[in-house]
Amino acid sequence: MTARLDAATIDLLGVLAYGELTAFERLAGDSQLAPTIEDKIALASMAHVEFGHFKQLRDHLQAAGVDPVAAMAPFVKALDAFHEATQPSDWCEGLIKAYVGDGMAADFYREAATYLTDKPTRALIESALADAGQAEFAVARVKQAIAEDPTRGGRMALWARRLVGEAILQAQQVAVERDALLTLLVGSGDLAGITRLFTSITEKHTARMHALGLQD
Amino acid sequence: MTARLDAATIDLLGVLAYGELTAFERLAGDSQLAPTIEDKIALASMAHVEFGHFKQLRDHLQAAGVDPVAAMAPFVKALDAFHEATQPSDWCEGLIKAYVGDGMAADFYREAATYLTDKPTRALIESALADAGQAEFAVARVKQAIAEDPTRGGRMALWARRLVGEAILQAQQVAVERDALLTLLVGSGDLAGITRLFTSITEKHTARMHALGLQD
Repeated sequence: MTARLDAATIDLLGVLAYGELTAFERLAGDSQLAPTIEDKIALASMAHVEFGHFKQLRDHLQAAGVDPVAAMAPFVKALDAFHEATQPSDWCEGLIKAYVGDGMAADFYREAATYLTDKPTRALIESALADAGQAEFAVARVKQAIAEDPTRGGRMALWARRLVGEAILQAQQVAVERDALLTLLVGSGDLAGITRLFTSITEKHTARMHALGLQD
Repeated sequence: MTARLDAATIDLLGVLAYGELTAFERLAGDSQLAPTIEDKIALASMAHVEFGHFKQLRDHLQAAGVDPVAAMAPFVKALDAFHEATQPSDWCEGLIKAYVGDGMAADFYREAATYLTDKPTRALIESALADAGQAEFAVARVKQAIAEDPTRGGRMALWARRLVGEAILQAQQVAVERDALLTLLVGSGDLAGITRLFTSITEKHTARMHALGLQD
């Protein structure tokens, strides 16, 4: 029997679970935009992996006596709003969103998880955040799309910037409303730690943009 | 090493694999229409199961030295056309499509599989056609929706009839183009067998409509 979880841990598991569920839906939706059956299968496979992660997070909450739907509920509005504001208009935008957007979210959750005291939860989050294949696939396909039409590069760089902007906007909303989660990150009063967090997330974002051949 | 498969067996595995892939996409898409997070999870879980079936069929084709994409290719147009013509306009229509449409397709594939000589393929198809939970879920939710608004009953019965009509239309197209598959079903010259096939499929369709509380 897992130990009872504290409010911040439940929050982190809840936002992550709903994040995986929406990632599943989005990747499955993108697979309908795929130009070939091979691409369709690749996207559907990633969606399949994300749903597997969702199930693990849900089962972990349930085993700790927490209602998963209640744990996810506080984050539904922000995550739905993010996806509503960043609907990809084509296949290439969808791939960048899967790689840049999910990558940044994963970096953030991974950092937050290092503050958790419950070891099984930390291990579970690490495994749920493992890349489902988006990175390699998106980098190859986006580079190919830009090689075919170099004017795409500038538009895609703007798109990635918009993703980051919308993500920050929604994260701020969540931070205002979820004291426990915010305290997990900043409550230690460790300002140097918070600076390191944002520096690290920014650096990883820049690395992803460079991998895509886009200006950050 | 699986024995090389004959043309009809490859056709059946191909149409079934692409059917599972599109079922996955459709259930995942329907989960975005779900009125509650619980319903969303239920639909996403079914989509997850369907993709698992797809992977088994793909792996089976690959193990027999058959390119799965080539095996699926002849059926892409017909299945895409079916889904294009039967886009659910609401949650309830989506559930009926998942139950009535997938149910009828499964009945057909299951009957076709009985003519296959390769036993491992038959066993695999049987398992891939196992209900992913659609039946129980759709019956409960559709009955509830009709109880809340009895005028829905007539509209939903018409919708189910349209699903059947479009399915027959596309099946005829496929039958004309895929000799091997057609021969599998009718080539035995066993007219009584074909009559039994259609009688059995019709009876099962009627039973599903009654389970939903709809006129067939």
